[in-house]
Amino acid sequence: MSTRVLLTGSTGFVGRACRTRLAEAGIDTVVTGRSSDGLGEAAASERLVAMDVTEAASIDAVLREYRPTHLLHLAWRAVSGDIWRSPENYAWYRHSVALMTAFARAGGRRVVGCGTCGEYDWSTGMCDETATPEFPNTAYGRAKLATRHAAAALTDAYDVTTAWGRVFFVYGPGEASARLLPTVVNNLLAGRPAEVSHGRQLRDYMHVADVAGGLVALLGSDVVGPVNVATGEAIRVRDLVAEAAEQIGRPEFVQWGAKPTGAHEPPLIVARNRRLIDEVGYKPTMNLSAGVADVIERARMALDAPSPAPTKASA
Amino acid sequence: MSTRVLLTGSTGFVGRACRTRLAEAGIDTVVTGRSSDGLGEAAASERLVAMDVTEAASIDAVLREYRPTHLLHLAWRAVSGDIWRSPENYAWYRHSVALMTAFARAGGRRVVGCGTCGEYDWSTGMCDETATPEFPNTAYGRAKLATRHAAAALTDAYDVTTAWGRVFFVYGPGEASARLLPTVVNNLLAGRPAEVSHGRQLRDYMHVADVAGGLVALLGSDVVGPVNVATGEAIRVRDLVAEAAEQIGRPEFVQWGAKPTGAHEPPLIVARNRRLIDEVGYKPTMNLSAGVADVIERARMALDAPSPAPTKASA
Repeated sequence: MSTRVLLTGSTGFVGRACRTRLAEAGIDTVVTGRSSDGLGEAAASERLVAMDVTEAASIDAVLREYRPTHLLHLAWRAVSGDIWRSPENYAWYRHSVALMTAFARAGGRRVVGCGTCGEYDWSTGMCDETATPEFPNTAYGRAKLATRHAAAALTDAYDVTTAWGRVFFVYGPGEASARLLPTVVNNLLAGRPAEVSHGRQLRDYMHVADVAGGLVALLGSDVVGPVNVATGEAIRVRDLVAEAAEQIGRPEFVQWGAKPTGAHEPPLIVARNRRLIDEVGYKPTMNLSAGVADVIERARMALDAPSPAPTKASA
Repeated sequence: MSTRVLLTGSTGFVGRACRTRLAEAGIDTVVTGRSSDGLGEAAASERLVAMDVTEAASIDAVLREYRPTHLLHLAWRAVSGDIWRSPENYAWYRHSVALMTAFARAGGRRVVGCGTCGEYDWSTGMCDETATPEFPNTAYGRAKLATRHAAAALTDAYDVTTAWGRVFFVYGPGEASARLLPTVVNNLLAGRPAEVSHGRQLRDYMHVADVAGGLVALLGSDVVGPVNVATGEAIRVRDLVAEAAEQIGRPEFVQWGAKPTGAHEPPLIVARNRRLIDEVGYKPTMNLSAGVADVIERARMALDAPSPAPTKASA
């Protein structure tokens, strides 16, 4: 049977990178968004389809028409406020379960969902799919973990396999401008100082292209259960910022310690990624220096580019 | 605000014992079943109500009419086949989440669901709510664990607290006649031999009255998350059977080793129960000898009793 991927969340940070990866591989993909207008132009292997992940009828119509064999489910959003605390997380848990169930019932064979390092107990710092307890302490982590266990239970009711790609700290072109690296890069490129925390926290940072590479490889594998999609390397936040500042040539503009760190920010969050490398067979390709260079290059291009034309008003 | 309990699964083995416990405590309880005919006579503190846990409209109607503050959700059944493997477990997971969500949305304040020792990784034998990984290897365990995580995530969306009572090995009057202890007791009381396995497995057996006591205490507490409802004592299956045979006076009728043990039966499954005792404040009351005596006494009464009259046909 040939493969057809149903992709949700395709306009998000990770979703756009997954879409690119699938298109580059020429994989038949139904790219969905709330409106097809927001999905841009279709690649040869893509069909652009409006689907409302929160509406059973909308999902069923797409499943009936396109009969996807694989589901890569990334859609998840909090309209208002902090994603880590939002009560909307529970609604997205329920939407996600309804989608996965409808997909399996319609004959889908493979589901990959997108989880978070926030599903783990962070007290040890090292996150291992087998050894580290699942103990989220945020609304986002709890809702994602509930979805992960629903995906596991789904396999007992339908002829489907499910895996759960756990994403850690993602950076790369297209990251929301208010986040750490874009803020630093945009300020330094504009000749403005950048305020940061002490930066001693250690985090597993992965370039979004590798996150997408890992998720798409997981989708194409038969590995089941949680899989960390991460580099396995603990990078000091300070080193990430310093790398960007060095490459831009403005290290003196970084104001270390000007911002507080969160009271509950753990010193270390890093993944074991043997499942990704050994079982899925995906090896991260981008080191920190190349990844940061990519971010800076795209930020420079965006600064040089003319403002985009106003988008067509929807009918 | 006064307490009103909504009880589901009230005709099951554990459900009947919980109903008794709630009635003895005089707690205002909406006792639900698929038809109110099957619920017998109402105690002073009870209202007997038909509710179909699989139908949103039926649930909503009961919530609107009775406005329960507490939900003790025990309903869960596989119509056909082995509960540990049935694909129906996934449907019951989804029904349970829909019920808990509707209850919270309608203003309910406290949810207690019923889980299983089968949610734990059994490789160590000792099941601790904090230290033992959640790693079910059955459809039943996976669906219950998915429900447990849904209950945890629910608290981020609604003003409700949730706890999850994990039940281990339950025995007592009313246990299904095909199960180990009723089979042994009924055979020996009838003067027939009873075939059993080698009986060297160690299990945490709890009398159903204590299971109900623990669940009702948990419902009345503000403890959240998983709580083992268990004795904390590992009882050899052989000793359970031998106790019954000694009390009946027919030890020679037990045919040890006549039945095989399952290929995947672990040698030891026992709970840590410090949360139940120290946090919930419930201490199991029944020792094995008294518990088995209770089973034998009720079995004798059932043998002596006339057959029940046929139940009224539903209209």
